[in-house]
Amino acid sequence: MISIAVLGAGRSAGYFIDYTINLCKDRGWRLTIADMQTSHLEKYQADFPSLALMNASLNEQNERLRVIEGADWVVSLLPAFMHVDVAKDCLIKGCNLATASYVSEEMQELGAEAEKKGLIFLNECGLDPGIDHMSAVKIINDLRANGAEIIGYKSYCGGLIAPQFNDNPWKYKFSWNPRNVILAGNGVSTALLDGEIKVIPYHHNFQRPEEILMPDDSAYEAYINRDSLSYQSIYDLEDVKTMVRGTLRYPGYCRAWNILIHLGLTDNSYKYPLSEGMTYKEFLCSFLLGNNHTDIIDSIRQTIGMPDYEQDAIDKVLWTGLNSNEIVPTDTQGSPAAILQNLLEKKWLLKEDDHDLVVMQHQVKFTLEGETKMFVSSLHLEGEGRVSTAMSKTVGLPLAIAVKTLIDNPSKKKGIVIPIYKGIYEPVLEELKSFGVEFSEKVISLSEPVTESKPE
Amino acid sequence: MISIAVLGAGRSAGYFIDYTINLCKDRGWRLTIADMQTSHLEKYQADFPSLALMNASLNEQNERLRVIEGADWVVSLLPAFMHVDVAKDCLIKGCNLATASYVSEEMQELGAEAEKKGLIFLNECGLDPGIDHMSAVKIINDLRANGAEIIGYKSYCGGLIAPQFNDNPWKYKFSWNPRNVILAGNGVSTALLDGEIKVIPYHHNFQRPEEILMPDDSAYEAYINRDSLSYQSIYDLEDVKTMVRGTLRYPGYCRAWNILIHLGLTDNSYKYPLSEGMTYKEFLCSFLLGNNHTDIIDSIRQTIGMPDYEQDAIDKVLWTGLNSNEIVPTDTQGSPAAILQNLLEKKWLLKEDDHDLVVMQHQVKFTLEGETKMFVSSLHLEGEGRVSTAMSKTVGLPLAIAVKTLIDNPSKKKGIVIPIYKGIYEPVLEELKSFGVEFSEKVISLSEPVTESKPE
Repeated sequence: MISIAVLGAGRSAGYFIDYTINLCKDRGWRLTIADMQTSHLEKYQADFPSLALMNASLNEQNERLRVIEGADWVVSLLPAFMHVDVAKDCLIKGCNLATASYVSEEMQELGAEAEKKGLIFLNECGLDPGIDHMSAVKIINDLRANGAEIIGYKSYCGGLIAPQFNDNPWKYKFSWNPRNVILAGNGVSTALLDGEIKVIPYHHNFQRPEEILMPDDSAYEAYINRDSLSYQSIYDLEDVKTMVRGTLRYPGYCRAWNILIHLGLTDNSYKYPLSEGMTYKEFLCSFLLGNNHTDIIDSIRQTIGMPDYEQDAIDKVLWTGLNSNEIVPTDTQGSPAAILQNLLEKKWLLKEDDHDLVVMQHQVKFTLEGETKMFVSSLHLEGEGRVSTAMSKTVGLPLAIAVKTLIDNPSKKKGIVIPIYKGIYEPVLEELKSFGVEFSEKVISLSEPVTESKPE
Repeated sequence: MISIAVLGAGRSAGYFIDYTINLCKDRGWRLTIADMQTSHLEKYQADFPSLALMNASLNEQNERLRVIEGADWVVSLLPAFMHVDVAKDCLIKGCNLATASYVSEEMQELGAEAEKKGLIFLNECGLDPGIDHMSAVKIINDLRANGAEIIGYKSYCGGLIAPQFNDNPWKYKFSWNPRNVILAGNGVSTALLDGEIKVIPYHHNFQRPEEILMPDDSAYEAYINRDSLSYQSIYDLEDVKTMVRGTLRYPGYCRAWNILIHLGLTDNSYKYPLSEGMTYKEFLCSFLLGNNHTDIIDSIRQTIGMPDYEQDAIDKVLWTGLNSNEIVPTDTQGSPAAILQNLLEKKWLLKEDDHDLVVMQHQVKFTLEGETKMFVSSLHLEGEGRVSTAMSKTVGLPLAIAVKTLIDNPSKKKGIVIPIYKGIYEPVLEELKSFGVEFSEKVISLSEPVTESKPE
């Protein structure tokens, strides 16, 4: 009998867990769900009495090994940094693994052993990464099957707040792991632009965002998301002239966030020397040049060396409370990024009835029969509340459906797998439609209109 | 019989090696010097036949263990990243250790075991760190012995080129490890300024250097050197209002280097995607926004977001050849920082007859009998050529003299030691004078002159 073990059952796991409980109940599969606390799932046991719920400290290896004992598939919904430990457990116990997170270097290194043992370690199977890969590769393969030559690829995704629930100047609230938002873009990002490699250091990535218009004319801005270039080989796009993967925000966000980066407030590399009773204003001022900041806006401009920086962006920074006399809680001891995250978690809290919004767009440029065109594929999905977010749905369902798909039709590829194979992406994308996760598609002609000279 | 083993005998080791050979010869101590190649030292064996020279691959542990076998003291002149390996060897073989480098976290962790074994691991005993610690703590202790209260401490040091040998617009040449110069200031730096903690992110550290005037009215500029705050407890300066440790350059350097930092060219965290036949211009342009950089100066200004950035600083950047059509050598594959280092090593080469310059200044503010004064202590030492540099002298001699001192009078403090103890700094500073390494000192009154109101 197939047995699945799920590690982590936090609030954002709802869609995954609902789907997987129904699946295992229907198929008669064994399902174990483990977390610090699982009592909120007991209600499912009435209909599905064999559902095993385990309260376990999943940061301890012996507890994890106990949970995954006998499982064919282990799904890790734990924080991304724990996936490698879980992967090692899976190698010990001979389990397949599924996560929605990026393949880390350490994970990559475990791939060879997984492959040798005939195990699949499925990763990057959520929204971004996940649905982005699946929908992109499907477009690319379908266009090529029709004889098209792909010449450019741009793809953008954002986890935002639905416009009618925007009630702060950043037009942003946390619909997913706040830590990832605080550290977004850290390190270097890369892209290919009209044939030129572009290397974008962290402190430039938010400085000049690209403007993006969706089919409904809603406007967004994008910063480059990690190492776009590495997806050229993954997507089989070695010959394109443009390769960009970006993350979307509402207009105005990036220029304001750029200030926090420039001041050093998103640095996660050292423990800030926080003193007892320090205020947020004192914390902020420690990053500013000189003393006696009577004009805080001017001090910020002087410090970042951009004397004309728009007031609107600086106002967003001050709105966070960074200029207030409130005391920085000492239990947020840690990096500047950790202190900033603690502050923003209060300010950017998704309220009970807020709807989040997931937006994704691929722009695939191609030539076919001498014409240059662009295939534009867009996803626009609104959530239904603080728990039933579009984010939780688009991260959880692809993962759950992919695990079902791989159990029904095990992939020949073992070791590290991401969902760029037809055997995974076709059934997953198809089934997602029944949950309302569906792209709208259109093709735009980019060829110059031929202007015929009319003889007088 | 005392036995000393020296690991590394590169050109910059000259002063250390000369001193130590004479010392061991006079005292009848055993001396072993090991490096890839030691034939240039054979000339000393005529006078000192027991001098042992070993050609060894010092990156291999078994070779190092063979060299240090039986040594009471091991001196590592190897690159700083190798000191921890050498320290582990010393724990195995029961040897004391001396280096001129900063105590790394890993070195710190080995301290407890060294202490347990009764071994001294002397570090930070060169110029900066080294002479700076010794001279600072001497001033502080002497002032306090006279009843003074220390209220502020600033200290600056630079390894530069003597003014008459300045022949490039940066007024800089490498007189020591180029890698340290390229990566200087990486990470966060801290200082205390009029009672306020200052946290300086990398991309601000060179943006607004402090201007420094030496007693001879020569002008320099300074950026903050690492974590100044941590030296408050080391120097016993917990109550000062100002605590700054800075690195000196000639005026104009920092604003130009700031551009390289902002563009991302000093990033050492990833392998740059260098392609065969890529020119420096293409390399540079990959860090610039957009394509078609017909006006490179404007492109740089736009990219760093500072449209008024002074042309003079940008000209320095272009002088390096970063805008040339020369091919980037593929054997410099590595990080942007490694590519930049390779380029600058050619441009900033110290010529055979060039004299380098070591400059150091402490500014210690204190109150005594109601008056506020500043003790200013300055070192200004010119080198004698490409081999006999002031840098090599001021790094090598303190280390050599300190080892002699600790052999003659073993310190009671075991484990990690830096030269802030009277038993070390007094004899070392005293003996350095005989080599021309001597500070000039003066005291400046800072108290407001009392203006008496004269009755009309």
